[in-house]
Amino acid sequence: MRIALYNPDGAAQFWIDGLHAVWPEAEVALWSPGSPAADFAIAWAPPQAFFDEQPGLQAVFNLGAGVDALMRLRIPPQTQVVRLEDAGMAVQMAEYVCHAVLRHFRGLDAYEADARAGRWRKQDVVVRSDFPVGVMGLGVLGTRVAQALRGFEFPVNAWSRQSKVLADVRGFAGAEQLDAFLAASKVLVCLLPLTVDTQNILDHRSLSKLQQGGYVINVARGAHLVDADLLALLDSGHLAGATLDVFRTEPLPSEHPFWGHPQIHITPHISARTLDAESLAQIIGKLQALLRGQPVDGVVHRDRGY
Amino acid sequence: MRIALYNPDGAAQFWIDGLHAVWPEAEVALWSPGSPAADFAIAWAPPQAFFDEQPGLQAVFNLGAGVDALMRLRIPPQTQVVRLEDAGMAVQMAEYVCHAVLRHFRGLDAYEADARAGRWRKQDVVVRSDFPVGVMGLGVLGTRVAQALRGFEFPVNAWSRQSKVLADVRGFAGAEQLDAFLAASKVLVCLLPLTVDTQNILDHRSLSKLQQGGYVINVARGAHLVDADLLALLDSGHLAGATLDVFRTEPLPSEHPFWGHPQIHITPHISARTLDAESLAQIIGKLQALLRGQPVDGVVHRDRGY
Repeated sequence: MRIALYNPDGAAQFWIDGLHAVWPEAEVALWSPGSPAADFAIAWAPPQAFFDEQPGLQAVFNLGAGVDALMRLRIPPQTQVVRLEDAGMAVQMAEYVCHAVLRHFRGLDAYEADARAGRWRKQDVVVRSDFPVGVMGLGVLGTRVAQALRGFEFPVNAWSRQSKVLADVRGFAGAEQLDAFLAASKVLVCLLPLTVDTQNILDHRSLSKLQQGGYVINVARGAHLVDADLLALLDSGHLAGATLDVFRTEPLPSEHPFWGHPQIHITPHISARTLDAESLAQIIGKLQALLRGQPVDGVVHRDRGY
Repeated sequence: MRIALYNPDGAAQFWIDGLHAVWPEAEVALWSPGSPAADFAIAWAPPQAFFDEQPGLQAVFNLGAGVDALMRLRIPPQTQVVRLEDAGMAVQMAEYVCHAVLRHFRGLDAYEADARAGRWRKQDVVVRSDFPVGVMGLGVLGTRVAQALRGFEFPVNAWSRQSKVLADVRGFAGAEQLDAFLAASKVLVCLLPLTVDTQNILDHRSLSKLQQGGYVINVARGAHLVDADLLALLDSGHLAGATLDVFRTEPLPSEHPFWGHPQIHITPHISARTLDAESLAQIIGKLQALLRGQPVDGVVHRDRGY
């Protein structure tokens, strides 16, 4: 068995050693153009040549939850595309989103500014019922985030392609319920997969349907958000702010107006880091199942794109 | 029935109207020196004269969870002291503490500084197992905080006067287990009642027993913490930072060295606000029980001070 690695998070030797511990006979190597074709691959954002040169690839394990970078490539039809599921990312996403929601809900930016100015001043209490949070996308990550927000007793709405039931969460499904979902939400958390259906979904039309004083948290992909539309709605006062971890171009170009914007918090795509040990363990488990001919979770539906 | 109000959070009329809705015949009024003596009182931090002039008071409802301000006064022996329990404060405390823990765990202060400088830079991932959080005090608030932290999968230790069992939380009890609790914790969250036993408990001796790179979150009372000892351990590098919501003197005096300290986050005693509606509802329920001669929760044990 030959396993090709491409752009693994962390040291290549970690992956080689980890896979050899389970399959001592396997040939495991970093892929580069001209490498021998492999049976399986573990990759993040490989080039087209990666698939063109390996037409017999049985499966590629994507080193992340979102497979949009792979879905832009021509992948041999028999190659199964398997994405990471959770692998330590769900709790990180819950952390990041809850931190951003709580910071905004509790007015902690204003308290920070007061502290810098040496000013002792209590703000008015915001009522929780006036602060419904809407989560777009109810995969493993979105579900965990919605549940974590419920733990803080926020009213939580969720929007997904297909109807899903989650305890104490008001569910909306499909394009026909998108506007009702937006109108019921003040804070919007985007955890959608990036597909042709969801790109640019956070545009002027949709963001202006959020409740007055709305807040946007994008932890999915930069291409979900139309940057200029967010800026316009911050300028108009309809939106109060945003926390953005993902951008159309990463690193975010130095001239981009998001940098230094007083109402936008920026982080460099760190909301849910790929964790080496958890990812390795999950991929080993799935590869063992595939080798036994068993089905595995996380196989991407090529037609829907995630 | 006569009910005296002292320093209620929110408008006095709200309390008067709310109590009249249940007891239309009751005389409800703000207390001032010389007011007629009442049967019951709802008060926050009254003066000694409040009790001296009302020797027949059957019960005083404290408008907060901590009763240390009352315990410093001479209160007639038959007057029951009843404190607020939860009343919307537990979830707020969980919010505040989780926000502070997550900000520190995820290095979000450093990301904020990077964002201000227009710098895109991922930090090293901190391993959750290297980040045990210790909660001091397992009352209603401490229990809720410990459970919320478990929801983010942190290792959680708890220290309380008497041994208490909480799922997935490592418990320590009494003075003899304090050092073991501190040595097992990197982040310390103080939610203790303020008593003669707990004042100054966060001093150089105890804080230096926290793990290297420790972090202090005080949301109880300022007198738990010896300010100069915290500053010395920040200077020495043993502690990495602190988030403080309570202070020995409030408002924090303008010349205090906590203001502007680069490793200290300050908020003006807002971690858990007293919520009018929740507090009114809880006090009405308890007063109804007392009038029926039934026992109520939240009665302070005068001997232990909480």
